[in-house]
Amino acid sequence: MGELHRTRALYAVIPAGGSGTRLWPASRKGQPKFLLPLPGPRSMLQATVDRLSPLMPYSNMYVVTGSPHAVAVARQLPELPEGNILVEPAPRGTGPAIGLGAALIARRDPHAVMGSFAADHHVTEPERFRAAVLAAVRAAEQGYLVTIGIKPTYPETGYGYIRCGRPLLEHDGFVIHEVEEFKEKPDRATAESYLGSGRSLWNASMFVWRASTLLEEMRRLLPEVYQTLETIAAIWGEPGYEEKLAELWPQLPEVTIDNGIMERSDRVAVVPTDFGWTDLGDWHSLGELLGASEGANIAVGCPVIAEDTESTLVYGRGRTVVTLGVKNLVIVDTEDVVLVCDRSRAQDVRRIVRRLEEEGKLLLI
Amino acid sequence: MGELHRTRALYAVIPAGGSGTRLWPASRKGQPKFLLPLPGPRSMLQATVDRLSPLMPYSNMYVVTGSPHAVAVARQLPELPEGNILVEPAPRGTGPAIGLGAALIARRDPHAVMGSFAADHHVTEPERFRAAVLAAVRAAEQGYLVTIGIKPTYPETGYGYIRCGRPLLEHDGFVIHEVEEFKEKPDRATAESYLGSGRSLWNASMFVWRASTLLEEMRRLLPEVYQTLETIAAIWGEPGYEEKLAELWPQLPEVTIDNGIMERSDRVAVVPTDFGWTDLGDWHSLGELLGASEGANIAVGCPVIAEDTESTLVYGRGRTVVTLGVKNLVIVDTEDVVLVCDRSRAQDVRRIVRRLEEEGKLLLI
Repeated sequence: MGELHRTRALYAVIPAGGSGTRLWPASRKGQPKFLLPLPGPRSMLQATVDRLSPLMPYSNMYVVTGSPHAVAVARQLPELPEGNILVEPAPRGTGPAIGLGAALIARRDPHAVMGSFAADHHVTEPERFRAAVLAAVRAAEQGYLVTIGIKPTYPETGYGYIRCGRPLLEHDGFVIHEVEEFKEKPDRATAESYLGSGRSLWNASMFVWRASTLLEEMRRLLPEVYQTLETIAAIWGEPGYEEKLAELWPQLPEVTIDNGIMERSDRVAVVPTDFGWTDLGDWHSLGELLGASEGANIAVGCPVIAEDTESTLVYGRGRTVVTLGVKNLVIVDTEDVVLVCDRSRAQDVRRIVRRLEEEGKLLLI
Repeated sequence: MGELHRTRALYAVIPAGGSGTRLWPASRKGQPKFLLPLPGPRSMLQATVDRLSPLMPYSNMYVVTGSPHAVAVARQLPELPEGNILVEPAPRGTGPAIGLGAALIARRDPHAVMGSFAADHHVTEPERFRAAVLAAVRAAEQGYLVTIGIKPTYPETGYGYIRCGRPLLEHDGFVIHEVEEFKEKPDRATAESYLGSGRSLWNASMFVWRASTLLEEMRRLLPEVYQTLETIAAIWGEPGYEEKLAELWPQLPEVTIDNGIMERSDRVAVVPTDFGWTDLGDWHSLGELLGASEGANIAVGCPVIAEDTESTLVYGRGRTVVTLGVKNLVIVDTEDVVLVCDRSRAQDVRRIVRRLEEEGKLLLI
């Protein structure tokens, strides 16, 4: 752990956006995935901050979130200084969100190394996660945009992939590689070939770089975004900056950091690693994480009485859930909706949400 | 329908007791089956009264219920005169409940013919039910204790059976038979042999007799019960009768009208018939009644959004229930409990209730 006490401070940006449609009805427009206690007891956002806290003081962490969630984020993270919760007037993707964080951090510390970590991913081995981040920091200090790539354990079709190139450097047992290519979500056969290749990694959207490196690449690749963010950062916190932010922010294009920067830059490196990462994108993966695939029944948030029940995940809010003679189910009990779903159909929860949207049942989504 | 306008008035006693454990968690100790809207929209008790109302005025119907349910019964049946709701200080089975009704009716009309009808059974063909009752009345007027026997349609093991003897008389297409024997709930093989015999009927616990005939048989077969009920009936409604009732009623033995009278009397006749009768004893039979066995999904009491869902019954209280990729389920959503049960396991719901009782979770039952 001596490694963690760096003389040069590390910073983080945590973009807290996205709704997590497939975790409906627990996740809603007003209560996105990152605010939920998945798997609990702390919310995914809180767990993200907890996971980073041995690496840096809270005052070095910036959360970027939308105005509908600002209050909930502030309440969930009393440890963060007020000024570290950055509220976007409108969602513009991770590009502007992370860029704004970088611009503010660079003003505070021109040599800062920072990471960007989604607020709604899960890590089972946080020690190993932090070691990988520190290896990424070593490469970042050499001017790379570093991404953390997860060694795949099965042919997942729901993630993007990163193809490793030649090794660049080694640190603490991690071999950092050049990135050859970013790949979109593959079909099943392609995912299987990736798994066999030994060179393809899951893109976990975790990045480490010098703030200044990112801003340079942004100036080159997304010059208008860069310019607007610099203007905003220059007045951030000054009297009357809210009006300027409200005027300028909506003019930004919607762009992800992956599409806008990482896939187009030639300064990208990757730390191949594995620390029990999952994006916990749907109820099935929550069940897998908690062991429901081995026949066990899992209860989160409520008392469950299970008779002759197998591999069933129950996510509730206090009401007792009783199961009898069932298996492979996901049962989600919320204030106004109860979902009963076969675990193999967890991906299709988004179809339900779409249907509700089409039918105008907006109170439910 | 001319037949229904009898010159001699008909009376009814409706014993409203029993909790309907297998319909938990909708049915509770405090909210027994007969108070529930199964299948709805009226409660089973209300439907029983509705079914009888073309046969007699409301003032001729007596409901016998326990003190915990007196208020709910009074609210559900505003059409009944106050004095027609008889409140037992303690449950003593159908013997004393029906006997009290008979004693009060006999005092009002010594020649009265009356029926007794459970408050928690379902009938799909009420016209045919009433025709069968009127056939039973004809036999009752000749001094028989008449039961209505349902022609079995499958080898049910959850009902008692009645074996028909020789035919006694005919009325309106009904052939009324002597009863040879009452049989307890059979095992599967026995139930199948009953079904094949053509002589065995389901015991639906519906009875028709002259009040005086029942009281005579009660004096002979249950002399102490008879004596106590006569004492109670003699003072019923007089000033101070509540104290006497509270003193005498608990001394009555617990006995059903089936065990205490019908199975021991030699004046018993049966009307074999069929009017879509079911005791709606569990969630499976509610599903069958509503057509869930043919693949359809059934929603009672709540909006349901069903995707790739088959033969599933949802019973709720307003909250939206969403199902995805499931079949043959019963889902019951109540204020404090959600039950998800395979339809084939509906009988075992009583095991859950027993378990909750053993574990002292009395709030849930």
